[in-house]
Amino acid sequence: MELNEKYMKEAIKEAKKAECKDEVPIGAIIVREGKIIARAHNTRQTKQISTHHAEILCIEKACKKLGTWRLEECELYVTLEPCPMCAGAIQQSRIKKVVFGAYDSKGGFFGSNFNINEVKGLNHYPEVEGGVMKEETSKLLKEFFKRKRERRISS
Amino acid sequence: MELNEKYMKEAIKEAKKAECKDEVPIGAIIVREGKIIARAHNTRQTKQISTHHAEILCIEKACKKLGTWRLEECELYVTLEPCPMCAGAIQQSRIKKVVFGAYDSKGGFFGSNFNINEVKGLNHYPEVEGGVMKEETSKLLKEFFKRKRERRISS
Repeated sequence: MELNEKYMKEAIKEAKKAECKDEVPIGAIIVREGKIIARAHNTRQTKQISTHHAEILCIEKACKKLGTWRLEECELYVTLEPCPMCAGAIQQSRIKKVVFGAYDSKGGFFGSNFNINEVKGLNHYPEVEGGVMKEETSKLLKEFFKRKRERRISS
Repeated sequence: MELNEKYMKEAIKEAKKAECKDEVPIGAIIVREGKIIARAHNTRQTKQISTHHAEILCIEKACKKLGTWRLEECELYVTLEPCPMCAGAIQQSRIKKVVFGAYDSKGGFFGSNFNINEVKGLNHYPEVEGGVMKEETSKLLKEFFKRKRERRISS
């Protein structure tokens, strides 16, 4: 199995934890030297904190684990293309590479709506690979929102 | 005294708290219905967490205070133009208005380097007012970096 898939499956596991809490199913992990050093999932609704996206929480865990805000040797795997805030957090943390699953045409800031890497003069530009396991990661989101709609109609 | 100045002075007080910790002096406050509901300053070096910018910490405090991730009625005052991450967090939090002090030609994401409000299709666009007390807020940063350089030379 390809490494990207191996790690995306771990991010999907995190996304499913979010789903169990009735949160939008988005999960992330951070890998350093082949080892998973942080895992997190979206908890925005549960905690009612706007910054509690999977990527932000995962980055904070990785910083605490390594004792530094510089995550230069780290790769972040996330099930959905990062939003402006999370793309910015990845840039601020000097993360080496981002691998994401589903594309987000509306909020995606690594190419789908806008590409933060095209802004000149920033102090870091991560490598980016999108669309890894995109069917599985998109399906997770689509089915979540479908169930939400059905529940609304039936209630 | 103009309201913008009154609140920017409070953000500057926060920036000075950062300075006392040898952090880059950046401070923020959040105001709702004329009342300051959250205050925070940059603690990135002290905590070694990349996301610990003044704005992110201030937004998180405001969410906790109000019990909601939606800060629609809130205004954020910050001494420096927000970076990509913080501009994104402001957008994610649906903050009504951002007032900033010094412009940041390198990282500023509300017009100086790039303007996040020009990206189409996002779900929120805050009002923005920049350059409030820009001399004082710029001076704070310039003097901090000047002292840093002098200390490096003399050591």
